[in-house]
Amino acid sequence: MDVSHHLTTLLPHDPTASSGGSTVISITVFFTLLCACIVIGHLFVENRWVNDSTTAILLGLCAGFVTLLISKWKSSRILVFSDQLFFLYLLPPIIFNAGFQVKKKQFFQNFLTIMLFGVIGTLVSFCIISIGSYFLFKEIMTTTFSVSQDYLAVGAIFSATDSVCTLQVLSQEETPLLYSLVFGEGVVNDATSIVLFNAVRKLDFSDIDTLVVLKLLGTFVYLFFTSTAIGIGVGLLSAYVIKTFYFGRHSTDREVAIMMLMAYLSYMVAELFSLSGILTVFFCGILMSHYTWHNVTENSRQTTRHSFATISFIAETFIFLYVGMDALDIDTWKASDKSVGEMIVASGILLILVLVGRAAFVFSLTNIVNFFKNRITTRISLRQQVVIWWAGLIRGAVTIALSYEKFTRSDSTSSKNGSFMITITIIVVLFSTVVFGSVTKSLIRAIIKQQMNIRCSEDIDPAGLEDLHLLFEEHGEDDGHLVNSGLLTRHSSSTIHNLWRKFDDRYMRPVFGGRGYVPHSRF
Amino acid sequence: MDVSHHLTTLLPHDPTASSGGSTVISITVFFTLLCACIVIGHLFVENRWVNDSTTAILLGLCAGFVTLLISKWKSSRILVFSDQLFFLYLLPPIIFNAGFQVKKKQFFQNFLTIMLFGVIGTLVSFCIISIGSYFLFKEIMTTTFSVSQDYLAVGAIFSATDSVCTLQVLSQEETPLLYSLVFGEGVVNDATSIVLFNAVRKLDFSDIDTLVVLKLLGTFVYLFFTSTAIGIGVGLLSAYVIKTFYFGRHSTDREVAIMMLMAYLSYMVAELFSLSGILTVFFCGILMSHYTWHNVTENSRQTTRHSFATISFIAETFIFLYVGMDALDIDTWKASDKSVGEMIVASGILLILVLVGRAAFVFSLTNIVNFFKNRITTRISLRQQVVIWWAGLIRGAVTIALSYEKFTRSDSTSSKNGSFMITITIIVVLFSTVVFGSVTKSLIRAIIKQQMNIRCSEDIDPAGLEDLHLLFEEHGEDDGHLVNSGLLTRHSSSTIHNLWRKFDDRYMRPVFGGRGYVPHSRF
Repeated sequence: MDVSHHLTTLLPHDPTASSGGSTVISITVFFTLLCACIVIGHLFVENRWVNDSTTAILLGLCAGFVTLLISKWKSSRILVFSDQLFFLYLLPPIIFNAGFQVKKKQFFQNFLTIMLFGVIGTLVSFCIISIGSYFLFKEIMTTTFSVSQDYLAVGAIFSATDSVCTLQVLSQEETPLLYSLVFGEGVVNDATSIVLFNAVRKLDFSDIDTLVVLKLLGTFVYLFFTSTAIGIGVGLLSAYVIKTFYFGRHSTDREVAIMMLMAYLSYMVAELFSLSGILTVFFCGILMSHYTWHNVTENSRQTTRHSFATISFIAETFIFLYVGMDALDIDTWKASDKSVGEMIVASGILLILVLVGRAAFVFSLTNIVNFFKNRITTRISLRQQVVIWWAGLIRGAVTIALSYEKFTRSDSTSSKNGSFMITITIIVVLFSTVVFGSVTKSLIRAIIKQQMNIRCSEDIDPAGLEDLHLLFEEHGEDDGHLVNSGLLTRHSSSTIHNLWRKFDDRYMRPVFGGRGYVPHSRF
Repeated sequence: MDVSHHLTTLLPHDPTASSGGSTVISITVFFTLLCACIVIGHLFVENRWVNDSTTAILLGLCAGFVTLLISKWKSSRILVFSDQLFFLYLLPPIIFNAGFQVKKKQFFQNFLTIMLFGVIGTLVSFCIISIGSYFLFKEIMTTTFSVSQDYLAVGAIFSATDSVCTLQVLSQEETPLLYSLVFGEGVVNDATSIVLFNAVRKLDFSDIDTLVVLKLLGTFVYLFFTSTAIGIGVGLLSAYVIKTFYFGRHSTDREVAIMMLMAYLSYMVAELFSLSGILTVFFCGILMSHYTWHNVTENSRQTTRHSFATISFIAETFIFLYVGMDALDIDTWKASDKSVGEMIVASGILLILVLVGRAAFVFSLTNIVNFFKNRITTRISLRQQVVIWWAGLIRGAVTIALSYEKFTRSDSTSSKNGSFMITITIIVVLFSTVVFGSVTKSLIRAIIKQQMNIRCSEDIDPAGLEDLHLLFEEHGEDDGHLVNSGLLTRHSSSTIHNLWRKFDDRYMRPVFGGRGYVPHSRF
């Protein structure tokens, strides 16, 4: 792991430790903390104010503080945050697992809404944060960015929602609709953020005209479709390979290994072509759970389902621990010449802009969506809108990674401004994860419960009926097309779904296997 | 992974690729090759001449050659072999899984024989190779090592058997006795090799007296017992933690994650104190399969059993692919001023010394062991001795890693001699893995079959009876003490085993759980 490379800086002032020795120390410390996180997270699992992210981030902060004490405030760099470690090794398993375990029906039924949130929503949020920071920073701060392009970068960085934390605060079982909306948006948001971020870095914004906007749109469409296509391609290839060779005949290890390797490969291939690896690996996960997973032996099914979840869980905990420990990097704190007050004001401004930016698109876009929905049962209620708004406020490791990429490499900003931006990014991320994150669970529970109570007193049960309806369909899916025939076909999305079912049964399954597939020994 | 760091050198002459970009390329190439290995290995699984190691090593050679062609013979460094990557990330999961899946009964029944082979055997082999190379290299080669200590290092390096390859050529199901002997020896051999290797580097060998020998012995005993104790300690701790907190109540992910993390931690803690991590993680694996594994939920059991095997399988394939690709590192080849003829002669000498050294201790020590065994059924037949001798001949990644550690860091040898030694190490490893490895399967099958035939014609069935007997006991173990009571207690090792059973039932299981443990919800 690259970890070793970056962890070696944990105790750099120990003169007795050789290079290999200090790696061992760092890994030991880090893995012990991971174990502690798991135990503490388990003990507080029923506490509504604490979740795994906050536990890990606070434990990371404590560990960073202790290390700082041990090194007598000299060890300025506790852990160097490496965007490569994050993007290449930690993020792919998390997003793959999300795709692998996602309720596909739910996801595709809300596909248009998700796209609207992910693309238009991110753009709205990007504009509000960029423009807002441009005016407010000039108003309040003593020194500002010399290049206006940097404000656009800030907009792109703080528009990136944290899909990882969303997975932790929303439950797919309790609130399937909200989960699929917020999480789906997070995945699409990634593609948008990449386009925006690269556009900000490359394009000449001094003369924005229609051509540039069209070019941006074209790039996004290209990115979205090619990324998705690669994910689907690798997913289908894995299904085909496993169905054809039937590795399980000799060993389950080969099946599980090839699933893991191909999933990871899909991400890497997308990154190779500078596409959105997150989109690719997400769709690869969906395809693998739809076809490949059914083609392997029962043992491999059990193993993959749980081991993908475990790896994802470890990676998530790792990231938050990492972010927590990284926050006390006093080199960055010292390098900035701004006062603590200025930092807090700047962070506050950004937090407010994030809140406003998200509110602006969530409440407007959902009303547009509701307007086009002819059935009241499928509309998104105001309470649900509040949850969607709130759950996507958390800024996490993606924001930190982008901030590092922008403000440590870029030549346009002075290193002092860079350090300042990194510091306030960390403050925003810590605050939003710890405060927003711990409130979300209670908020959702309160809102959903209240809604339930209202529903019970009324006779009409819009969202509840929908949930039941979806549960029914999901169940029908599991029983293999049995339930989903007469009653539910009224729905327009159900008819599209049925068309897909027919296509799937006639053309895809004979080639790629899938549910109900029984491998026949050909030897 | 550190891989990224070392894989970046895969295509260093590509001017368009950024640092991150070339990592992505390398990972993509490497993981594609891993997938290819799995598919090819599956296709040839019934071929007795090919095994997974040879497939991977040959594919690695081909890939190295192709890369060399693409870079027009300029890219001298295809892959840099990193002993840190090998010892910190690839080896631990393999050895842990071996301990986790090993038939414990078999292993402990042959414990003394294993220790004898692992300690005395390695010492004999070390002496023969050191002395042999000292005289033969002086006789044949134009230039030799100036320091005689280097010959001792050669002895230590080439005495290190490759436990990974042993796992692949011997089957635990077909030849349980041989498997446990050869593999157990390989594990103990590691501790001995570390002591020898460090002793050679640190001790002053100009005046060898009894004190030095005693000191060596003391170090070994210390190393062996502390390493084992840490492994047992971490294993018991994991069992206790999982039994007490019962993570499975809320999520299987936590159970699996804590097992994985603690297993890895045991290795790291041992390395932290400069002990034998391999011994530690091996015993941790044994303890975890005896206690911890029974304390988790059924889902976690399935998952851990298969995912540990899969991770180990991927790591093994990775290592051999890596060794194959590393072999074509033309920088090392060019740096040595020796002719190709001299290289082949030197490699031949070392191979012969390895053959002789192993023969010397296997045949002598087994006869000593047989002499002390009063029952003919437990003696090791000549045919079995041949298999033990042959199966342990393969030199693998451990040898390469030690060789790199010695000959690239040491100041005592000139860099030319160092490159020469690394080159002939690679030749010996390639030859022994490909040739010995591919012959072993057929050899074992032939010998075992012949033995079976002989047994069928005779009435006495010594080794066969023993196998049956052990199978019976193993089965009895699985059924929970039922079978193993009256018939089999004659055996002396069985009585020891029964004492252990009583101790285990009375003192250990109430605290640490284990087979038959049913978690009761305390909430």
